[in-house]
Amino acid sequence: MAEKEENKMEKIISLCKRRGFVYPASEIYGGFANTFDYGPLGTELKRNIKDQWWKKFVVEQGSIVGLDSAIIQNPKTWIASGHLSSFSDALMECLDCHARFRADHMEEGKFIGGKAMEKNQCPACGGKKFTDPKEFNLMFKTFVGVTEDTAATAYLRPETAQGIFTNFMNILQSNRVKIPFGIAQIGKAFRNEITPGNFIFRTREFEQMEIEFFVEPKTEESKKWYDYWIKTVEEYYTGLGLKKENLRIREHEKEELSHYSSGTSDVEYAFPFGASELGGIAQRTDFDLKQHEKVSGQELKYFDESSGKRYIPYVIEPSLGVDRAMLAFLVDAYDESDGTDGRAAGEITLRLHPKLAPYKVAVFPLVKKEGLPDIAKKIVADLRKSGVMTFYDESGSVGRRYRRQDEIGTPWCITVDFDSLKDNTVTIRDRDTMEQERISIKELENIILGKLK
Amino acid sequence: MAEKEENKMEKIISLCKRRGFVYPASEIYGGFANTFDYGPLGTELKRNIKDQWWKKFVVEQGSIVGLDSAIIQNPKTWIASGHLSSFSDALMECLDCHARFRADHMEEGKFIGGKAMEKNQCPACGGKKFTDPKEFNLMFKTFVGVTEDTAATAYLRPETAQGIFTNFMNILQSNRVKIPFGIAQIGKAFRNEITPGNFIFRTREFEQMEIEFFVEPKTEESKKWYDYWIKTVEEYYTGLGLKKENLRIREHEKEELSHYSSGTSDVEYAFPFGASELGGIAQRTDFDLKQHEKVSGQELKYFDESSGKRYIPYVIEPSLGVDRAMLAFLVDAYDESDGTDGRAAGEITLRLHPKLAPYKVAVFPLVKKEGLPDIAKKIVADLRKSGVMTFYDESGSVGRRYRRQDEIGTPWCITVDFDSLKDNTVTIRDRDTMEQERISIKELENIILGKLK
Repeated sequence: MAEKEENKMEKIISLCKRRGFVYPASEIYGGFANTFDYGPLGTELKRNIKDQWWKKFVVEQGSIVGLDSAIIQNPKTWIASGHLSSFSDALMECLDCHARFRADHMEEGKFIGGKAMEKNQCPACGGKKFTDPKEFNLMFKTFVGVTEDTAATAYLRPETAQGIFTNFMNILQSNRVKIPFGIAQIGKAFRNEITPGNFIFRTREFEQMEIEFFVEPKTEESKKWYDYWIKTVEEYYTGLGLKKENLRIREHEKEELSHYSSGTSDVEYAFPFGASELGGIAQRTDFDLKQHEKVSGQELKYFDESSGKRYIPYVIEPSLGVDRAMLAFLVDAYDESDGTDGRAAGEITLRLHPKLAPYKVAVFPLVKKEGLPDIAKKIVADLRKSGVMTFYDESGSVGRRYRRQDEIGTPWCITVDFDSLKDNTVTIRDRDTMEQERISIKELENIILGKLK
Repeated sequence: MAEKEENKMEKIISLCKRRGFVYPASEIYGGFANTFDYGPLGTELKRNIKDQWWKKFVVEQGSIVGLDSAIIQNPKTWIASGHLSSFSDALMECLDCHARFRADHMEEGKFIGGKAMEKNQCPACGGKKFTDPKEFNLMFKTFVGVTEDTAATAYLRPETAQGIFTNFMNILQSNRVKIPFGIAQIGKAFRNEITPGNFIFRTREFEQMEIEFFVEPKTEESKKWYDYWIKTVEEYYTGLGLKKENLRIREHEKEELSHYSSGTSDVEYAFPFGASELGGIAQRTDFDLKQHEKVSGQELKYFDESSGKRYIPYVIEPSLGVDRAMLAFLVDAYDESDGTDGRAAGEITLRLHPKLAPYKVAVFPLVKKEGLPDIAKKIVADLRKSGVMTFYDESGSVGRRYRRQDEIGTPWCITVDFDSLKDNTVTIRDRDTMEQERISIKELENIILGKLK
C-alpha cells in the first residue's frame, strides 16, 4: 500500500488504543494471536453498529424474525454444512524451523506479518525445504463432557448461518411466518486462521450479522430478493454515513462461486490496505437445508397453504461482519485537518454518523466555579436518564475540550457559561460545522433526541 | 418440588418451545447436552433484558464505562485468576459402566437428570464400586494455531470478569476515569458443567452482565458501594416488574465466602424448583488485580492525583446471569387464569413489563376487506419505522388474536374497524386490564412511545 495510506492505518490503530476504542487482547501477558478487546468507546460503537443493523434488517422489515443460537452445536451440524470435511487451508511446514504457512501464499508471494513470502522460501528462517501441503481444518475444536475422546469432540461455530438452518422447522412451527421471510442473527463466530491480520479486519474471533432469507425455489424470485438485499445492504452503510465512492458491490465471476451458490456479490470497502470484503449477499439455493435433511433424516420443507405446494425454499444470505464494519466506519470518518478548515493542521476529527458516535453529547462548565459545574452535571444526568450517552468534562480550556471530543466523534458539545445562570440557556456546538447556537436548557433533550431520530 | 410447581415449569418450557422463546439446540440432531437456542421471541426478550441492564448500569450511572473483551484470552489470564489450578469439580467414575458423577452429589443424594443419586450407588447402572474422586477442570479447552500441543492450548472464558481486570491499565490510560468508577461487560461465558439443568437456568454456554467497580482499598468505602450495588440490582429486577416477594438478597455466611471475598450477597429468585441464584454482589477486595500483577509482572496500580496515593483498588462486583434473568422474568410473568378474571380458565397471560415484552404492539384489521388490512399494515410499518416491534395479525376472531398476544406478553393490541374508515381512530386494548380505549391513529405513535419511556 502507498506510504500515506499505511500511515493512515497506523494513525487509526494508535487513536484506537490511545482513546479506548480497541486494545490488543491480553496485553499485560504479551498479547494473544491477533485477538482484540474493545474498550469503552469501541464497545459503544459496536453496540450502535449492531443496534442499527437490527433496526433496519429486523424491526423495520416486518418479514424478518430474530434468532440467537448456541456457539457450540451438535457436531453433526458441521458434517451437514460441509465444514468438517472441507473448511480447511492447505499448510506447508518449513523443514528447518517447523513454522507453518498457507500453501497458496507460498506460491503467490503474499505479505505475511509484514514480510513478503518469496516463492519457496520460509519468511521465518529463510529455509527452502518444506513438507507437502496438508489440509488443516479452520474450526476450533473443544471437548464437551468429562472425557477428551472423539465422542465428546465439538466445535466453535465458524459461521452463525447454520444455527438458522437447523432451527428452520422450529421457527416455521412456532411463528406464523410465510415465505418470503427471513431469520436474522447477530453473534460470534470463530476461525482458527493461520494468517489473520490488518488490525480488526481479520481476527480469529469475530462477530457476524446474518440473515437467511427464504424464497420460493425459482430463479426469478431468488434474483428479485438478491437485488433487494444488495440494495438494502448498500443503504445500511451509506445511511450511516459511509461514503458511496468508497463502497463497491463486486459480483463474483462464475469460477469464484462456492459450489452451493448461484450468484454472490461481495460488498467491498476501499481500506488503506486495499479494497476488502465487508460482507456479501449470496444465493445459496437449497443447498444447506437439503444437506441438513440428508444428514438429520428430518423433513425440512415448507408447505405453502395457498398453492398447496411443499418445497425446500431457496435462500438469499446477506452476511456482514461487525468488526469489519467498525473498521470501515472508523477509516471513513477519520479526518486530519490540513489547517485550512478552521482547525489547526494535524487536528483529528472523527466524522462518525451521530447514530454511531460512542458519546452523543459532551457537556462543559466554562469554569469550575459559581455553580456552573452543578448545572452541567444536572444536564448530563438528565440526558443519561433519557438514554443519551453523555460525557462530562471540566478540565482544560474549552477549545481543548472540543478537540478531545472531535477526536472521538462526539457530534455535539454543550457549554454552560455565565449567561446560563441568568437565562437558562447554553451553547451547542456542532462537530462538523463548528457552528455554535444558543439554546434553552429546557429544550435540550428534545433537540438532541430529535437529531438522533 | 411440589407437583403444582413442577407442572408450572413444564408449562413454561412448553410455552417457550411452542411460541418460539426457547428451543433445545441442534434438535434435528437429537439435541446437544443442555444447550438451548433462543427463538424469535426469546431473542427479543434477551435483547431487552441486556439493553435495560446497559441503560441502568452504564448509561444512567455516569461512573461506569463499557468493555467487550475476547472469549479466548492468553491462558496466563487463567493462571492468575486461579481458574486453571482450582476451577474444578471432583468426579467419581462407576467401575461397571464408566459413567462419571460429581463426588459431592454422590454423597448428598441429589437429583441428577430426574434420578435420585443414592449414596454410593450409580444412577446409571446401579453399580456400587467407584474410582476415588478426581479433579476435573470446568474450563472448555481449545487449541489456537496449527498444532494441538500444550503451547497452543487455550480456554473459553469461564467468566467475563477477568477480561476487565486485564484491561484495567488500558482503561485508566485511555479514559479519564477516576476512582470510584466501574467497568461493565455483557458477554458469553462457558463452563463444562457435569450436571447442568433446570432448562436455561444452568447451561454450559451462558451470558453474564458484570461490573467490576473500583474503590479505595478501605473497608468502609467498599461496604458503602457494596450496599449501593445491592440496592441497584434489586431495583433493576423490581423496576422491570419482578415481584418483590419472589426476590431475596441472601448474605453469605463467613464459611461460604470465596477465599478472595470479604462479603458476598446472592440475589435469589423463588423458582418453582426452589430459591436459586440470579446473580450476586461480591466484595472481591484487591485479590484479582494483585494476582494479575504477580503473574504478569506489570504494575496495576491507580494513582490518585488529589491525595498523591498510589494503590491497588478494592473491587465490588455485581454480576447477573442473562439467561437466568430471562427465566425469572418468564416464571414471574406467567399467569394462568382460574376463570374468575374475565378470561376463560386455563388461558395464559404473560404479564411481562412492556420494556421487556418481545412485541410491544399487535395490530388487527377487524375483517379482511374494505381496506382495513391496508390501514392496519400502514400502522404496523409506521410503528416499526419508529423502532417499535409490532406484529400484524389478520387471522381468526379478534378474541382469538387477543389470546395469542396475551400468551406472549404483548402489552397492547390495536384493532382497525369500520369506524376507523370514518374518523381515523382505532381501539387500543390493554393486556392486563383488558380495557379498550378509542384513540386517533395520528396520536398512536406518541402514545406507545410515551408508555415505553
